[in-house]
Amino acid sequence: MSSPPAGLVQKLFQYIDLHQDEFVQMLKEWVAVESDSVQPVPRLRRELLRMTALAAAALRRLGARVDLVDSGAQQLPDGQTLPEPPIILAELGAAPQKPTVCFYGHLDVQPAARADGWLTDPYTLTEVDGKLYGRGATDNKGPVLAWINAVSAFRALEEDLPVNVKFVLEGMEEAGSVALEELVKREKDGFFSTVDYIVISDSLWLSQRPALTYGMRGNSYFTVEVKCRDQDFHSGTFGGILHEPMADLVALLGSLTDSSGRILVPGIYDHVAPVTEEERELYAATDLDLGEYRASAQVKDFLFDTKEEILMHLWRYPSLSIHGVEGAFDEPGMKTVIPGRVTGKFSIRLVPAMKPPVVERQVKQHLQRIFSERNSSNQMSVSMVLGLCPWIASVDDSQYLAAKRAMEAVFGAEPDMIRDGSTIPVAQVFQDVLQKSVLMLPLGAVDDGEHSQNEKINRRNYIEGSKVFAVFFLEMAQLHGKRQDLPA
Amino acid sequence: MSSPPAGLVQKLFQYIDLHQDEFVQMLKEWVAVESDSVQPVPRLRRELLRMTALAAAALRRLGARVDLVDSGAQQLPDGQTLPEPPIILAELGAAPQKPTVCFYGHLDVQPAARADGWLTDPYTLTEVDGKLYGRGATDNKGPVLAWINAVSAFRALEEDLPVNVKFVLEGMEEAGSVALEELVKREKDGFFSTVDYIVISDSLWLSQRPALTYGMRGNSYFTVEVKCRDQDFHSGTFGGILHEPMADLVALLGSLTDSSGRILVPGIYDHVAPVTEEERELYAATDLDLGEYRASAQVKDFLFDTKEEILMHLWRYPSLSIHGVEGAFDEPGMKTVIPGRVTGKFSIRLVPAMKPPVVERQVKQHLQRIFSERNSSNQMSVSMVLGLCPWIASVDDSQYLAAKRAMEAVFGAEPDMIRDGSTIPVAQVFQDVLQKSVLMLPLGAVDDGEHSQNEKINRRNYIEGSKVFAVFFLEMAQLHGKRQDLPA
Repeated sequence: MSSPPAGLVQKLFQYIDLHQDEFVQMLKEWVAVESDSVQPVPRLRRELLRMTALAAAALRRLGARVDLVDSGAQQLPDGQTLPEPPIILAELGAAPQKPTVCFYGHLDVQPAARADGWLTDPYTLTEVDGKLYGRGATDNKGPVLAWINAVSAFRALEEDLPVNVKFVLEGMEEAGSVALEELVKREKDGFFSTVDYIVISDSLWLSQRPALTYGMRGNSYFTVEVKCRDQDFHSGTFGGILHEPMADLVALLGSLTDSSGRILVPGIYDHVAPVTEEERELYAATDLDLGEYRASAQVKDFLFDTKEEILMHLWRYPSLSIHGVEGAFDEPGMKTVIPGRVTGKFSIRLVPAMKPPVVERQVKQHLQRIFSERNSSNQMSVSMVLGLCPWIASVDDSQYLAAKRAMEAVFGAEPDMIRDGSTIPVAQVFQDVLQKSVLMLPLGAVDDGEHSQNEKINRRNYIEGSKVFAVFFLEMAQLHGKRQDLPA
Repeated sequence: MSSPPAGLVQKLFQYIDLHQDEFVQMLKEWVAVESDSVQPVPRLRRELLRMTALAAAALRRLGARVDLVDSGAQQLPDGQTLPEPPIILAELGAAPQKPTVCFYGHLDVQPAARADGWLTDPYTLTEVDGKLYGRGATDNKGPVLAWINAVSAFRALEEDLPVNVKFVLEGMEEAGSVALEELVKREKDGFFSTVDYIVISDSLWLSQRPALTYGMRGNSYFTVEVKCRDQDFHSGTFGGILHEPMADLVALLGSLTDSSGRILVPGIYDHVAPVTEEERELYAATDLDLGEYRASAQVKDFLFDTKEEILMHLWRYPSLSIHGVEGAFDEPGMKTVIPGRVTGKFSIRLVPAMKPPVVERQVKQHLQRIFSERNSSNQMSVSMVLGLCPWIASVDDSQYLAAKRAMEAVFGAEPDMIRDGSTIPVAQVFQDVLQKSVLMLPLGAVDDGEHSQNEKINRRNYIEGSKVFAVFFLEMAQLHGKRQDLPA
């Protein structure tokens, strides 16, 4: 495979290095907008709209054609409605011989307040020891800007952009991306019809070492309700003669896993893909210091003692977590109540080739068996309230090869090929609806603290990340050309 | 045993019947005071003080010497302080040859609002079909006034009161009677030194049939905390490699009982008193229609099918109830959290001759064994945060004989001898601190709805209850005299 011209790469790197303070300044302007989509209050919605306008202006400065697609309004439980920010669809270039790469990112952030334990004002990007602290710095404003920076470097140098670029930037990701899925379906044969590849940069590396993410687990979220009656009972007046719903529920929840974390639902492991030798090599090669990992997680001991087992149980085996109980006594202090109706909540992270409908059937059958063995006169009902498929890409996809080469060119080392134990539904939506290859190219380091206090992105990750995207464009053009040479 | 003079009894009954509308009017005035001690707000505290003053005035009208004992102030979690209503200590008569009977009652009520589902204004006593609806009507203003009515009948008829009467009326019962226990200890050799018997009328009959309560269960309330770390985890990022605290907790709570309600803590039944033949006869004689009971409780099936088993498991066997979990996800909706630190809450109702310190040791040993079998790296800690002894009186006590005869005289039938599955700590305090015989003489019917919406007392229960107390005074004098005739 031929490499992109070394001179051009050098020019791009130099440009990005020279303009890095401008790029940081731009990130500072974006972080200054409190585009919190989680708290449904009018002031924050206005901030979201302002953030959308800011991003649209940046894309227009690149020369992109920008379309703001109305997303309607959000209906709140109290009947109030709040406008949703429009979704940005933008495009730059439509040369038929070039591949079209579509970047998905989001402009909204999680809530943040100084009082939560931030050492700096969350909406004032503050650099300390090469770390840029601020809400949204890594999730997801920094990566969105890195992509824009990469495009702008080509434009500023008056170099031909080697790919056609499209953008999908939304403002409601932290609130569930409800409008996005509809839009993707609606625009399948419109905006997305010319898209060849989709790139998402909304996850993190596993360590300080660069990484590409090629899989995410899915999620089947269950509720199991046990009901005696709607009202609670007094434990003095009724304790001793009732089939107590909490006793039933605790037995049901206790039947789901053993103390080693293994899921006890019959058949649940039947569809889990067998471990391949290639996969084992990836785990062995992955950078993870267990001692550091334990310390940073503040966990005394994990269920497993080796790096390989830890990675496999996070990435390629299902896991079951019990989240809590609704309807029981959950406050501080004492209350002598027998809850009349309780709902347990748990979810199973799914891995290839598990399917939500199969898992749903298995879980329901299992819980019904356990419940019927108790001869309880209560009513039990189990629901799968969410069923998200796992997502996995082939590490041999053109996109992954291009991204690998881009990271090598910038960081001087091959990236770790990692998966992620959590779920990004939008990856699955793009893959399912559009049937396009999805690449997850994270820029943030493991300690960036997304969703947490003192979120940051390292200046290095942000600036080198901009270079990675620039080289990625060049590599994609090369691979795309090569692919077209192949016989159909 | 001789009976009280029939003529005097008739005069008393006639007086009470003739003045029943006055007695209902008095209850109406008392119910009109929103003496809610549960909600710590200044307005309601003023109402509590007004209620105390009203009761003190009623006692003074009887001719009693009334002492208002300052109870200090209540410290709220937010640092605010609120005055507590004083405790009323009152006495009427001090003839050394008469027995001294001390009545304990409370003037405060549970919160109530029309919006909670009351059909009438909770603070306007409203009569419908012989039922007097209003907050506090049965718990405990009606019974307190019935005792006062009984005394007032003797006074109005200018008849000698056959017993010395003392009153302990407090205003913080629904908020835990914190000041009362201290007062009882302080006044052990003062106000209480001349008291022979204590009467409480703060429970309910088991049906529409009159009853005397001779036992209450105690309560050992436990918390069991399982901690991995203080913060929660994301179930995507950590699910599969953690000893999850909820999994440990569910296993611990699930080890406490089997599906038949039997407590699985080793040794827990060792100290439970064996069932006597005399006891069995009491259960057999007790009025309880199981079908009606099930229907009124809105429960499809209890753990047991016979009246005797139901009564024994409510009254004379321990029971264990799981109340809930603090620290887990307890709200509506979905949250993919692995709670980092969770606290399960459960309590065991104790019966004679179980003792809280023994139960504490047994429960801790059991949970430690279950937890150690799991090889979890989490920390577990178990606390018994409350340990209240069971209380039981002998049904052959003079007080019970007198009360039985009084109920027979008024209702024409022997009362059921019942126990109560719940816990009235004050009974245990009087018995433990003062070593005096305690009688529980309930006046309210099973459907009075104490603590609930549409609380009521039947006019019949209130008026006939006033007669019961009047005859009880006469019977106590007879029995006391008889007892004094016995050789020492």
